[in-house]
Amino acid sequence: MAEIKYEIEETLGELSESAKGWKKELNLISWNGRPAKFDLREWDPEHKKMGKGITLSREEIVALKEILNKIDI
Amino acid sequence: MAEIKYEIEETLGELSESAKGWKKELNLISWNGRPAKFDLREWDPEHKKMGKGITLSREEIVALKEILNKIDI
Repeated sequence: MAEIKYEIEETLGELSESAKGWKKELNLISWNGRPAKFDLREWDPEHKKMGKGITLSREEIVALKEILNKIDI
Repeated sequence: MAEIKYEIEETLGELSESAKGWKKELNLISWNGRPAKFDLREWDPEHKKMGKGITLSREEIVALKEILNKIDI
């Protein structure tokens, strides 16, 4: 079976926590030894199992920040 | 085959565009007729095909905004 290697280099923040302890987190993650990217994803309490998510470049994170500061939430 | 119904109620912003025209967008999307949620995802130019992404509640979007305004990017 194929394998994905990843290393969470830094947890930048937690967005929420579910009843089962899964957290949505913004992390800096290195996938397969490549330079770390921003990653918004659900994780189990031990960071062993991952859920759905999206990887973002620095430019995309900056754009997201600007969008969130512009819209009315 | 099962079907997912969705309606993009509002496009809040675009984070990036790939060479093939796919865009990472922040949208307000109603899934299967439920109240709209924030959704960060890749889309083809016609919003017909979707890629990986993550759905976020209002509380999670607010938390994300606070994280992005706190970290150094």
